Amino acid sequence: MGSLQVALGIDIGGTNTVFGLVDEKGKCYYKNQILTEAHLPAETLFSRLFKTFNSEFKLKKEIFELVGIGVGAPSANIYKGSIENPSNFNWGYVDAVKLIEEYYALPILVTNDANVAAVGEMMYGVAQNISNFILITLGTGLGSGIVINRKILYGKDGFAGELGHTTVEENGRYCNCGRRGCLETYASANGICRTAFEFLSLYNYDSMLREYSYNSLTSKHIQEAALSGDKIANLAFEYTGAKLGFALANSVSHLNPEAIIIFGGLALSGDLIIDPIKNNLEKNLLPIYKGSVKILPSDLMESENAAILGAAALIWKEINKNGTIIQVSKNIGIKN
Amino acid sequence: MGSLQVALGIDIGGTNTVFGLVDEKGKCYYKNQILTEAHLPAETLFSRLFKTFNSEFKLKKEIFELVGIGVGAPSANIYKGSIENPSNFNWGYVDAVKLIEEYYALPILVTNDANVAAVGEMMYGVAQNISNFILITLGTGLGSGIVINRKILYGKDGFAGELGHTTVEENGRYCNCGRRGCLETYASANGICRTAFEFLSLYNYDSMLREYSYNSLTSKHIQEAALSGDKIANLAFEYTGAKLGFALANSVSHLNPEAIIIFGGLALSGDLIIDPIKNNLEKNLLPIYKGSVKILPSDLMESENAAILGAAALIWKEINKNGTIIQVSKNIGIKN
Repeated sequence: MGSLQVALGIDIGGTNTVFGLVDEKGKCYYKNQILTEAHLPAETLFSRLFKTFNSEFKLKKEIFELVGIGVGAPSANIYKGSIENPSNFNWGYVDAVKLIEEYYALPILVTNDANVAAVGEMMYGVAQNISNFILITLGTGLGSGIVINRKILYGKDGFAGELGHTTVEENGRYCNCGRRGCLETYASANGICRTAFEFLSLYNYDSMLREYSYNSLTSKHIQEAALSGDKIANLAFEYTGAKLGFALANSVSHLNPEAIIIFGGLALSGDLIIDPIKNNLEKNLLPIYKGSVKILPSDLMESENAAILGAAALIWKEINKNGTIIQVSKNIGIKN
Repeated sequence: MGSLQVALGIDIGGTNTVFGLVDEKGKCYYKNQILTEAHLPAETLFSRLFKTFNSEFKLKKEIFELVGIGVGAPSANIYKGSIENPSNFNWGYVDAVKLIEEYYALPILVTNDANVAAVGEMMYGVAQNISNFILITLGTGLGSGIVINRKILYGKDGFAGELGHTTVEENGRYCNCGRRGCLETYASANGICRTAFEFLSLYNYDSMLREYSYNSLTSKHIQEAALSGDKIANLAFEYTGAKLGFALANSVSHLNPEAIIIFGGLALSGDLIIDPIKNNLEKNLLPIYKGSVKILPSDLMESENAAILGAAALIWKEINKNGTIIQVSKNIGIKN
């Protein structure tokens, strides 16, 4: 066994699963990627993953000591070590820690991708000196991780931080969760596309977005259109930021955080999305909070290894000198 | 000096200030009350309070050992030990800990009445075995205390837990904070009176509430009317619970708590208010939370000493065996 301690970070996405070895400082020594094949049972994913990983890792065992495995996955529950009925996966309830333990008897932690990103920002990104923050991932949907005193808030059952499903509009847009008006139906890659179509029907402005079908339009198209001065596209960004700023003002009234970190695909649109979030958050804040909350784009997402770094950071954040997971309370922090 | 350890609990209200001695088990040995006289400087309140208290306490010094002083006050900040521009007080910024230290060089903690109530429920009330909860005070306004892993969430600046100022209605009712649609303009003693008048104008039902002026109507009148079958009054309770249930569903999506505890004047209306909160919370919850959040009326508020118990509990909750305040992080918990 080698002397360079590394954690294996695994990020399970709907299409691809990426994984890699990361040391405590965030240096990535190895990475790989396989298809998730979410229509097949979870066992087959882990079987293929560890077959690939082991064949390469056995060549490196003289260099590396593997200290733990961190996993980011949709609908993951850190208390139970489970992945539970993720949408668009044919998995049902999966005891992920148990499946992984068959390959490595090491500390294993699983949580959702927003929590993984929040831990990654604390260890290696923009939140290295921020104790209280909210991380928002603007992907297909809207995920969130809440950090209080440098610990992820998991709540009673491990389900804290579902800001994508706070209601911002009574009787608003229909959401996949079965309810209406959820924040993520407005503020997400999918949400901004819905907004673009709403605005195409509302306004008479010429717009290059009028050439797209609903199924072909992406947030990237809207970004390109906005940068070229397209009025509808710019209004769509403004509206997305307005909804998010409105909702986040309510989050600030709960948590009084120092910062809100914006992560994920839509966040790559930069000031197009960051500026309206800032302006609308500030406009909606209770006076005692005005001027006190920073809106920060993620540092980590610029890295091509962001997802692997975050998943590995789960282990580095929670492991102690003996190589065991720090035993903290069920309610905030990690259960072994 | 006596051997029975007690904490002095002080509750500063707009009209009266109550104070008393409480032991660790929540037994109250002495209590008293003076007028706050909020139009006069804070110094004069503490001067009168300690003159009264000292004259009685010096007779009891052979029995009691005073270990600390806990204070509940509007707009109090636990990090700074301050009371900052409370509405309807002519105080401005008051360094409360400094003023009190002139009388007793002991551990002193000040926080707002909702946090005090939450600590009281943990020490002596319905939350003795609940680690994660939100406490809502339905008084003139709506206050809230958030408890995570048995610690009050204070946030970056000590201002976490302002749920009364989450926005539930864009362009809704005007709030004293200068914004519109804040939860407390609907869900509070004042809010239900506003609702009653809105409904008197909306509906044609006969109602005993039609005899009251805006200035003379109280939530107690609405409660009495509701219990006697008054339709408008019952609709007002239903609407109040609907707004609160809607807002609290969003709070659950942040915090995944085990319970929400309802405290304060309007909570004394019992099922009239508790049932619509329960029903509307449940209706609005994201499916993963359904059936998992208890709505509990406060235990403590039944006690005539609730405010004193809560304020004293601040000390008992945070003091350690050496009689000093437990030094925990600035961000969650108490700073010395």
